[in-house]
Amino acid sequence: MEEEKSGFHMQPAEFRDAGREVLDWIASYHERVEGLPVLSSVAPGDTYRALPDHPPITGVPISSVLPDLDRVVLPGITHWQSPNFYAYFPSNNSGPSILGDLVSSGLGVQGMLWATSPACTEVEMKMLDWLVEMLGLPDHFRSESVGGGVIQDSASSASLCAILAAREQITGGASNEEGCRMPLVAYTSNQAHSHLEKDLKVAGIGRKNLRLVEVDREFAMRPESLEQMIADDKAAGMLPFFVCATIGTTSSLALDPIPAIAEVCRKHGVWLHVDAAMAGTAALCPEFRWTHKGVDLADSYAFNPHKWMFTNFDCTAFYVKDRRALINSLSVVPEYLRNQASDAGAVIDYRDWHVPLGRRFRALKLWFVIRYYGVQGLQSHIRQHVEWAQEFASWVNADNRFEILAPHPLNLVCFRLKAGDEASERLLKKVNASGKLFISHTKLDGKYTLRFCVGQTRTELRHVQAAWETIQGAVDSL
Amino acid sequence: MEEEKSGFHMQPAEFRDAGREVLDWIASYHERVEGLPVLSSVAPGDTYRALPDHPPITGVPISSVLPDLDRVVLPGITHWQSPNFYAYFPSNNSGPSILGDLVSSGLGVQGMLWATSPACTEVEMKMLDWLVEMLGLPDHFRSESVGGGVIQDSASSASLCAILAAREQITGGASNEEGCRMPLVAYTSNQAHSHLEKDLKVAGIGRKNLRLVEVDREFAMRPESLEQMIADDKAAGMLPFFVCATIGTTSSLALDPIPAIAEVCRKHGVWLHVDAAMAGTAALCPEFRWTHKGVDLADSYAFNPHKWMFTNFDCTAFYVKDRRALINSLSVVPEYLRNQASDAGAVIDYRDWHVPLGRRFRALKLWFVIRYYGVQGLQSHIRQHVEWAQEFASWVNADNRFEILAPHPLNLVCFRLKAGDEASERLLKKVNASGKLFISHTKLDGKYTLRFCVGQTRTELRHVQAAWETIQGAVDSL
Repeated sequence: MEEEKSGFHMQPAEFRDAGREVLDWIASYHERVEGLPVLSSVAPGDTYRALPDHPPITGVPISSVLPDLDRVVLPGITHWQSPNFYAYFPSNNSGPSILGDLVSSGLGVQGMLWATSPACTEVEMKMLDWLVEMLGLPDHFRSESVGGGVIQDSASSASLCAILAAREQITGGASNEEGCRMPLVAYTSNQAHSHLEKDLKVAGIGRKNLRLVEVDREFAMRPESLEQMIADDKAAGMLPFFVCATIGTTSSLALDPIPAIAEVCRKHGVWLHVDAAMAGTAALCPEFRWTHKGVDLADSYAFNPHKWMFTNFDCTAFYVKDRRALINSLSVVPEYLRNQASDAGAVIDYRDWHVPLGRRFRALKLWFVIRYYGVQGLQSHIRQHVEWAQEFASWVNADNRFEILAPHPLNLVCFRLKAGDEASERLLKKVNASGKLFISHTKLDGKYTLRFCVGQTRTELRHVQAAWETIQGAVDSL
Repeated sequence: MEEEKSGFHMQPAEFRDAGREVLDWIASYHERVEGLPVLSSVAPGDTYRALPDHPPITGVPISSVLPDLDRVVLPGITHWQSPNFYAYFPSNNSGPSILGDLVSSGLGVQGMLWATSPACTEVEMKMLDWLVEMLGLPDHFRSESVGGGVIQDSASSASLCAILAAREQITGGASNEEGCRMPLVAYTSNQAHSHLEKDLKVAGIGRKNLRLVEVDREFAMRPESLEQMIADDKAAGMLPFFVCATIGTTSSLALDPIPAIAEVCRKHGVWLHVDAAMAGTAALCPEFRWTHKGVDLADSYAFNPHKWMFTNFDCTAFYVKDRRALINSLSVVPEYLRNQASDAGAVIDYRDWHVPLGRRFRALKLWFVIRYYGVQGLQSHIRQHVEWAQEFASWVNADNRFEILAPHPLNLVCFRLKAGDEASERLLKKVNASGKLFISHTKLDGKYTLRFCVGQTRTELRHVQAAWETIQGAVDSL
């Protein structure tokens, strides 16, 4: 029998006590997550069926809910916060980020307009300006220029907004007014993220109007192929309007040659968006900033502190060189949201910088992270991750059963068994089924490829070493 | 001098200690928020300038950050969690919600696919099924039917997705493939939320293709006007495809007649989306469920637990009667996201139910809220809010300097000074400048109107009484 309680609100004293229980649960989870099987092994429906079919009529205290977190939820969790998580990309949290986000929940403000809570807008402006300095981004991305930055939920939403701004610009606003009637065409490399395809569907441009540009042997976009495609499309009466170049593709972390691509875009009057979702964080370190060469030529840029910068999802930093096209494509001003500050044009209203109206105070977690670690603290962790990935690559290289399939200047190593696709896939399944680590896969040059991405907050060198031993052991027994 | 710390990660022991400090800060904020001026009075730039121009090179402990929350952030906060907040709509938090969201931050999982953390998907399915039962929504919104529900960030994003699904359906997928070339037209009442206009811009349909349907004297959509507009558009060669009806408009909480609108939609083969952003929560109480009559005839439906249901932003519950059109318009499957469970069609992959790819474990806060309050606890609070709004309306009615401008069956009262626009606007400014309460405004029938919305978690009858006294006092001294 669960203890019943009245339906009244939780008072501050109870919040303190229940909050401590929850904090302890989380701290204890972080202490033991290393020992949990990384990849959940529940079957479809297991978690759903473990919860009651009907909602409870009467309430219970939080202390009665916590045991169900262990019983019902944890078996269905794939542990993204495990030090043994090397799949996809990191989606890091950290103590300061969790606590910064907790303050955001506690304050519970809506930052849709400057006027609805000025600090929510202005702390965000400052944090995004700090990031410009921290990553060495161009000054025109600062909030006090004609451009500026905003926090969005994801790189997919950021690229959608870049597409909308570019569409606004090339159609002179007509697509926002009358609908998108022009034969617009967008370009990205054939290694880039699938969200471009989704964004073009959403924006009413159609996925058939996305051109996938050829890549070189290092999986980076060929600017001469881009230029040829643009010329062909123009000759065919199409209207090239948008290029998404990638600093660190999802598959292999390939680096598109931004300066050459920017030159093609400039020549043809096409908007250049640069997506540096994970790899953007590397630019914190001056020695990796070469990956960002040419970013000053981009019209927009996005990276995700919620991937590799120890900041909980959601936190994508999205920048535009000139905010006008973006705002024109997203602004609508009903009477009930009118206010003096906005009417005077004295402030930024971030609701006009993305699709949703409501917005959470997400800058607090960034503020907590940057204050807690300091720039040097963040740099030191990024350096370690890159160093460990390089060590991992050296071990793979030294084992002649394996081959590496792509350059690995940062924290991702793409490799496979020389024995081929089937053996590599069996290796992946075996390793993941062990629960000792979790890696994911992709295809490079048509080959089944394993991806080993070092970037989890809790990962240490010993975990990377153990992972390699597990992988080797799994090959031995294939 | 701030205490410096090394750049290393926060360990669990430090997390426990720093976490307690943050919890105490939040509990203390909730204890004193009642006494703080509700509306922030900072000037543009104040908060921005109060933060250092450059990011810190070295880190500091969280205890060094918290004083800056008081010094820099709080003056720029408009207190949405104050019991004296009656503006716009409530954007509630509550103890259980804050703690459920804290667990989500601590687990830090990505729920983009079922396979990336099955519990994140299946707890969400179950919570949305619970809400179907709690609100008396039709069974075809349950996850085990051909329809289902998903958590989105906002009602704007939900209606965008409804538009995309409707566009997919009427164009037979062509708009997703080739772009949106057909002369589509959407409809909503002239009292409805501006996000429809924004959504149509985003979707490449154009805001000129949004028709604002006339309303009756109670600000509810006239179905006969809708039908006439659809007929006129068809005659002019346009393609009507989408109607958004509203249960509780933003301006005055007007209730569109859903059954009659649904009949028009059925007859003309038009998708019906029902937006019940705030008022949806009222359906928790059987006696207010009449507001939802006809919802079983809708193709999609959304309401925001993050408004009136004591659940932190972001949490919009979005339902579709048939999930196919939605998924077809948003699904893309790259190799690096392929997995056995998805390929087998055995699971829901929520990334195909909204625009962003990444997603947070937002169902946890709903689970905590529903478990903590129980259905009865939630109902009792909603009943109180409605009751207090009715009392407030009776006081306004009894004061012959005021008039009420719209029906007020739920928790919003629209009123003004009979003396006219200028006097009413001066009253608003005076009341809000007092810091004792915060109300917002709209225009009804062209008249400047004050909106008094009762729904904040911490509001009690005594606050509503004090608010009315402040308003009366302000009129006396105008």
